[in-house]
Amino acid sequence: MNESTASLRAHGGRIDAAARLYPAAPQPWVDLSTGINPHPYPVAPVDPVLWHRLPLAADLDRLTSTAAARYGRPAGTSLLPVPGSEVAIRLLPRLLGVQRVGIVGPTYGSHAAAWQAAGCAVETLAGLPLPAIDLDAQDLDAQDLDARDLDALVVVNPNNPDGRRWVAADLLGWATAWSAAGRWLIVDEAFADTDPGVSLLTLPALPPRVVVLRSLGKFFGLAGLRLGFVAADDALAGRFADTLGDWPVSGPACAVGAAALDDTAWIAATRDRLAAERARLDELLAGAGFTVLGGTDLFRLAERPAPPAGAADLADHFARRGLLVRGFEGMPHRLRFGLPGDAAAWRRLEDACAALDSSPGGT
Amino acid sequence: MNESTASLRAHGGRIDAAARLYPAAPQPWVDLSTGINPHPYPVAPVDPVLWHRLPLAADLDRLTSTAAARYGRPAGTSLLPVPGSEVAIRLLPRLLGVQRVGIVGPTYGSHAAAWQAAGCAVETLAGLPLPAIDLDAQDLDAQDLDARDLDALVVVNPNNPDGRRWVAADLLGWATAWSAAGRWLIVDEAFADTDPGVSLLTLPALPPRVVVLRSLGKFFGLAGLRLGFVAADDALAGRFADTLGDWPVSGPACAVGAAALDDTAWIAATRDRLAAERARLDELLAGAGFTVLGGTDLFRLAERPAPPAGAADLADHFARRGLLVRGFEGMPHRLRFGLPGDAAAWRRLEDACAALDSSPGGT
Repeated sequence: MNESTASLRAHGGRIDAAARLYPAAPQPWVDLSTGINPHPYPVAPVDPVLWHRLPLAADLDRLTSTAAARYGRPAGTSLLPVPGSEVAIRLLPRLLGVQRVGIVGPTYGSHAAAWQAAGCAVETLAGLPLPAIDLDAQDLDAQDLDARDLDALVVVNPNNPDGRRWVAADLLGWATAWSAAGRWLIVDEAFADTDPGVSLLTLPALPPRVVVLRSLGKFFGLAGLRLGFVAADDALAGRFADTLGDWPVSGPACAVGAAALDDTAWIAATRDRLAAERARLDELLAGAGFTVLGGTDLFRLAERPAPPAGAADLADHFARRGLLVRGFEGMPHRLRFGLPGDAAAWRRLEDACAALDSSPGGT
Repeated sequence: MNESTASLRAHGGRIDAAARLYPAAPQPWVDLSTGINPHPYPVAPVDPVLWHRLPLAADLDRLTSTAAARYGRPAGTSLLPVPGSEVAIRLLPRLLGVQRVGIVGPTYGSHAAAWQAAGCAVETLAGLPLPAIDLDAQDLDAQDLDARDLDALVVVNPNNPDGRRWVAADLLGWATAWSAAGRWLIVDEAFADTDPGVSLLTLPALPPRVVVLRSLGKFFGLAGLRLGFVAADDALAGRFADTLGDWPVSGPACAVGAAALDDTAWIAATRDRLAAERARLDELLAGAGFTVLGGTDLFRLAERPAPPAGAADLADHFARRGLLVRGFEGMPHRLRFGLPGDAAAWRRLEDACAALDSSPGGT
């Protein structure tokens, strides 16, 4: 394995770096590394005035009210748009000003990076003291978590990359006690759109110091738009608003975001389509000797113990065939697969899986 | 004057609020309140993949290198894109962590708002201890500024709303001594594109603790795009990068911004056009009894002592005629005018100026 392939493990979506590292791979690259819906919301041509003028208060209000109608807006929370939920993840440590944070992991790496960059002490925790849907063995007991003297806890629900999920009502009960002790709970719901019942925003009310993050990047397939939302109590929402100013997102983001969030028919059809494609992916992976560990309808985490012949690791096997998948540092047998976007991408993944099966190192 | 018209004095661009306050005004409103170029850079249709995928490192690199070629990139500075220079203004107080800031004013109100929101003590200063181009009476002497025990100073160059400008080389000499004492200098060059010689980025090198802000919103007329740049020493640039994450601006912003910054012919033609339209505006205002106090080729600050008959103040006179101009709290005789964008807008401004002249309260 080339040392610089480590850059492919830090984040998904780096097909430009992959193409440099594997110049002999077939073109164009098939990017399965991200969990971004390969069938994005169809963006209508942008009215030129939206590039030109500052976003109007009415544009921002419409975006926010559409998001509230889609996600829910519990009593006690304000919802505000942000230029990508990544920026919200990065800003939170600077706005909360806390010292010790726990992150239920392994999970999306930007959370730890953000708190570390702000000088906080970060602990990775194996679970929450309440059962996850489908998974329960890894959860801690309540005493253990309380003993850690944390100021804030980050939970990704559903979790990336393993798809661990907590029921909204269960999480609320636990969050109420947690936050009543003056602690913060941050719930990153970037992947909640395929499974909206897990979202805290569907509940009638939330206690203070509970923060929920949403993203238009994954389910809507609009990662390039840079649009997300923060739901938080009024005090923290005010600090976000002060920090981002009067025009937190672009004029086109207001228009495209509102149209996407308002499109109930597209959302319903997309949920069905993604569920069907996820089932197809599971079948393909199982046929190639993978065990699917979990995921959502947008990505699957899978492992396959025996290393393929002639490849440094599993990710290398796929990269040589022009398929960028997400590897994990120190876990050469484990990969995260996004959904192929078209027949050619499925074919390339099927061929790569077949090559894996027939290789001497395969099962 | 209606109490709620105060909202029109806080920022430009609030034509939706204006239309509610003046329902009888002619439609559509002519917005002269912002200093945004009414002839925006023509944005090509967006490649759909740019909404979909995360911005590639190559997309961001191209944007940044194009900006560096356009603006200059002095030794000792990194340049990085931000989702609007407003976000940079708002983030600076949180990233610098200083206590006492001076702002050369009166100037763009977001600077003071940002530092106050971060809990800093803010002083408004009348000038810098070096002569401004065209204006000099208001400048302080060096001893006075040094005695104020500031951690940071904010200068807008050219200044908004009065157009005060400082020569880049003069400002550098002063900045070097200022920052050598451990203090920060923040220079907001949002309006520098019509007069690029004032920009610190044209110099071969900058000392540490000098921060320059640029914007694609004004000269390029792309306020809705939300794209700007921060030039700063590596340490501060790293803190910005940590706070904004790997995708600080949208995919379309990368493409549109790079195209605009690279378009030398459009930039040259636009400078000529704006200069000619500014001369036309000056002539119109002078003919209506205004004294033009200053400005740039994108806006003019003008005053007219006698209040017009039948109007609460000058801004009200224009608003009744469907023209949104920028008023200033406590200065009812002073207005900032942006450039009209087409023949109908010029005609409406000319008619409103004529009504001012013929009104009993006029000169």
